[in-house]
Amino acid sequence: MQLDGVGIVTPQQFSFDMGGEGFVLESGDRLPDITVQYETYGELAPNRDNGILVFHAFSGDAHAAGYHTPEDRRPGWWDELIGPGRAFDTNRYFVICSNVLGGCRGTTGPGSIDPETNRPWGLSFPLVTIADMVRVQKELIAHLGIDRLYAVAGGSMGGMQALEWAVRFPSMVERCIVIAATSRLSAQGIAFNAVGRNAIMSDPNWNRGNYYDGEVPSRGLAVARMIGHITYLSSESMRAKFGRRMQNGDGPVRAFDDQFAVESYLEYQGEKFVEHFDANTYIYLSKAMDHYDLAGEWDGFENAFRDVQASFLVLSYSSDWLFTTEQSKEIVYALARAGKEVSFNEINSPYGHDSFLLEYSLQSELISAFLQGSRGR
Amino acid sequence: MQLDGVGIVTPQQFSFDMGGEGFVLESGDRLPDITVQYETYGELAPNRDNGILVFHAFSGDAHAAGYHTPEDRRPGWWDELIGPGRAFDTNRYFVICSNVLGGCRGTTGPGSIDPETNRPWGLSFPLVTIADMVRVQKELIAHLGIDRLYAVAGGSMGGMQALEWAVRFPSMVERCIVIAATSRLSAQGIAFNAVGRNAIMSDPNWNRGNYYDGEVPSRGLAVARMIGHITYLSSESMRAKFGRRMQNGDGPVRAFDDQFAVESYLEYQGEKFVEHFDANTYIYLSKAMDHYDLAGEWDGFENAFRDVQASFLVLSYSSDWLFTTEQSKEIVYALARAGKEVSFNEINSPYGHDSFLLEYSLQSELISAFLQGSRGR
Repeated sequence: MQLDGVGIVTPQQFSFDMGGEGFVLESGDRLPDITVQYETYGELAPNRDNGILVFHAFSGDAHAAGYHTPEDRRPGWWDELIGPGRAFDTNRYFVICSNVLGGCRGTTGPGSIDPETNRPWGLSFPLVTIADMVRVQKELIAHLGIDRLYAVAGGSMGGMQALEWAVRFPSMVERCIVIAATSRLSAQGIAFNAVGRNAIMSDPNWNRGNYYDGEVPSRGLAVARMIGHITYLSSESMRAKFGRRMQNGDGPVRAFDDQFAVESYLEYQGEKFVEHFDANTYIYLSKAMDHYDLAGEWDGFENAFRDVQASFLVLSYSSDWLFTTEQSKEIVYALARAGKEVSFNEINSPYGHDSFLLEYSLQSELISAFLQGSRGR
Repeated sequence: MQLDGVGIVTPQQFSFDMGGEGFVLESGDRLPDITVQYETYGELAPNRDNGILVFHAFSGDAHAAGYHTPEDRRPGWWDELIGPGRAFDTNRYFVICSNVLGGCRGTTGPGSIDPETNRPWGLSFPLVTIADMVRVQKELIAHLGIDRLYAVAGGSMGGMQALEWAVRFPSMVERCIVIAATSRLSAQGIAFNAVGRNAIMSDPNWNRGNYYDGEVPSRGLAVARMIGHITYLSSESMRAKFGRRMQNGDGPVRAFDDQFAVESYLEYQGEKFVEHFDANTYIYLSKAMDHYDLAGEWDGFENAFRDVQASFLVLSYSSDWLFTTEQSKEIVYALARAGKEVSFNEINSPYGHDSFLLEYSLQSELISAFLQGSRGR
């Protein structure tokens, strides 16, 4: 098998405990120690100025590019954008991606062991915020010997982290790429997340988060994923992909269990998802997204963006109804009013919110050009 | 208490068994007998030419107007449109509304007793279609001595029934009012229904529909309702009504159980819903909606509409993203191509699909004018 792109990559872990005092979260709660799962692609330049931190979305992980083994059927989730000659060109840049705090893919989260009790945290895990995720990533960056990032970039929840990096650590970020994201979810976005959480919590196996030594709430988590999945697609792409086709041939419907193709597809997506995702992580990360509100936290965009040094590239997708172009523009206008450098593009795409994981031609060109542009024109 | 409108109304029931042979459904299955819950408002004219049949939507019932007792806090679901001097003017018209076949509000459905087993039907209840609902209503109309309806009218699933009446019994319908409806659900619409069904079926209490002598699948049904509820509102109306408000005061979120106002609202809607709705009815009626496809069934709109005698009023709502204006226009254009009389209005409203139950000023005027217009201009 010929592996193009970055080839085989090895997952890495970094643990820290802040000198035994624990890591203080935005809530005031402490985590005694934190482990971060991460991957890197390309080489860090001798002067350490070519680091790019990319952030995964809600259900993603640290595996952004390449293959873990030659047998892997699929590369990392942003492989089309990360590699030699690609938008995040690993011949030039040192690309880093880590699983977020609260996650379930190697980084400390509610399914991790609480060292005090020697049992999984479950709901005793503290609430985490987008800011907490970013502050943990800063420890990772320091560990890698980087004190200023060439760029930060992410889509959806990853875009929230990119935004938070540029605002929270203004002198550490030169370029910030915010894709299919928002500085705060709409009421409708919160509502969909809330129903997903409710589906999980309604599963008797959830047991108020205490299921790690028994049956997991897989039915509730599958329903949550199905809801999410609808919001990631567009009505248009669902029509094109499934229309009103039945799963098992056409003709009049007679049996109770006959399904539409879209119905079978969603069930399959739900079932596949529960194999590698933790239900409590679903709850914690969706709450982190819901509570993220940049302007609210800083008492206005003006205060939030005042010290920002990064130049911005903001991208939205025409058919994204979950994180709309209007929400992207809200960020863009606020940056412009604050006198910051910002480029904005709405990319025409039928794939809805998922476009940032599917529509690469223009996205790739725009990111590539933005990264190669000089700063401080 | 002063009761305006139609005042106190008494629910009625009509049962029939087709001479002991049972009622043959579209599927070929038979129901040995059928009971229909219905209400009427106004007086049938001596020549029986003033009957208007109105149809409820997915979660509605036969109680379209007035109060059952003087203590009722709320009148029927379309009370603003039905009454003396209202759009469906009970001084002129005899208005009839019945609970649909497959329902759980008095008409035979999966929770009714199967006379052969003397136990609730559950999943042994046959699949029902929009056409089956309409054919049962025809028996009711005959029972009331009416052989030609002044008008049929309904919103959402009720609009599907109105459409089906005009097509299936062309000589019996003079005017047809189709509101916030479609001749076939989009893939996205099917997807939302499918996830709702999945939430119900994932509740262990569902027990493959066999729960009538035990705990009902109330958690799953509540989640299904929450999903549905989001699709009935618009992003705009959710922002206006809830925004990002927290349920219990503002300030930083600290506790796991803190909720957004929209989250509490949806939970409340879900919990309230399960008190009066049967989970199996949710499944059967949502399948009936999913499977409805007028053009598919008739091999094209041209065939479907060829013999139609009714004149049509089609209304859509600008912010309805579940049953879109585009879907209404599909019906309108097909009727126009078939040479039928059709008026169409897209009403500007921020309330999404629920507008047909909320936005009455223009809706009322348009319906009133349409009903008073002469036929065959």
